[in-house]
Amino acid sequence: MNLLNDAYWMRLALKEANTALQDDEVPIGAVIVCNNKIIAKGYNQTERLKDVTAHAEMIAITAAANYLGAKFLEDCTLYVTVEPCPMCAAALRWARISKVIYGAHDPKAGYTLFGPKLFHPKTEIQHGVLEHECGTLMTDFFRGKRGK
Amino acid sequence: MNLLNDAYWMRLALKEANTALQDDEVPIGAVIVCNNKIIAKGYNQTERLKDVTAHAEMIAITAAANYLGAKFLEDCTLYVTVEPCPMCAAALRWARISKVIYGAHDPKAGYTLFGPKLFHPKTEIQHGVLEHECGTLMTDFFRGKRGK
Repeated sequence: MNLLNDAYWMRLALKEANTALQDDEVPIGAVIVCNNKIIAKGYNQTERLKDVTAHAEMIAITAAANYLGAKFLEDCTLYVTVEPCPMCAAALRWARISKVIYGAHDPKAGYTLFGPKLFHPKTEIQHGVLEHECGTLMTDFFRGKRGK
Repeated sequence: MNLLNDAYWMRLALKEANTALQDDEVPIGAVIVCNNKIIAKGYNQTERLKDVTAHAEMIAITAAANYLGAKFLEDCTLYVTVEPCPMCAAALRWARISKVIYGAHDPKAGYTLFGPKLFHPKTEIQHGVLEHECGTLMTDFFRGKRGK
């Protein structure tokens, strides 16, 4: 059980997303919470690292496993500002994560478009936490890109 | 055009898979070929690294991007001994890889089960190259595990 509420953790994921934004990366951030404590965080670094696999969630999964010294994240919750893509959803399935909470939908690249059953049936999925803030960060970023 | 044939490159992917096997990892290996040259290779290291994202293909994608200094693998072919899982298929989509050739099907965790449209329509997919060798490596590995 989280003593702190979902909006609290999502704000920390948004802080990660803002770090990505400062680096001119697609602004997506994630934190992984276990026993009411952050054990890992990540933000999108695909441009800086020139690596398509460097999504916020992937970086957070690797960091959480490193922290725990174990590859399964069975008692963990991932908070991510935007709906995971299929790569990240499938990685979270491999990680056997308990719960995923995302902010805004991603109608262009979200997992629900490509494989709605990518998550394990036992993984609890919630969305809409700080949806407006999470989504606005994305739309502003892409509007800015188109305007250049 | 590859001057060397697909079986030649798949044998090198099998060599990677055998390295995984020696480490008691699920024996899957991959190489990425560009202009008739290997630019990256990888083998499954999920146990050693305690990281579910450390699949052969993911390691090879990151290594190839690092070699090229660019995140897109548009003129590259990935050879992998076993059908990619949804995580790897989606990563290969993000990487805009031209061609994927896999050896054996993976009826339990292959991408076709979860999201048959995970690859980009422009990505050419082939399978069945050294299928028997690639598949036998897997079935022997899992049979050995069950026998323990």
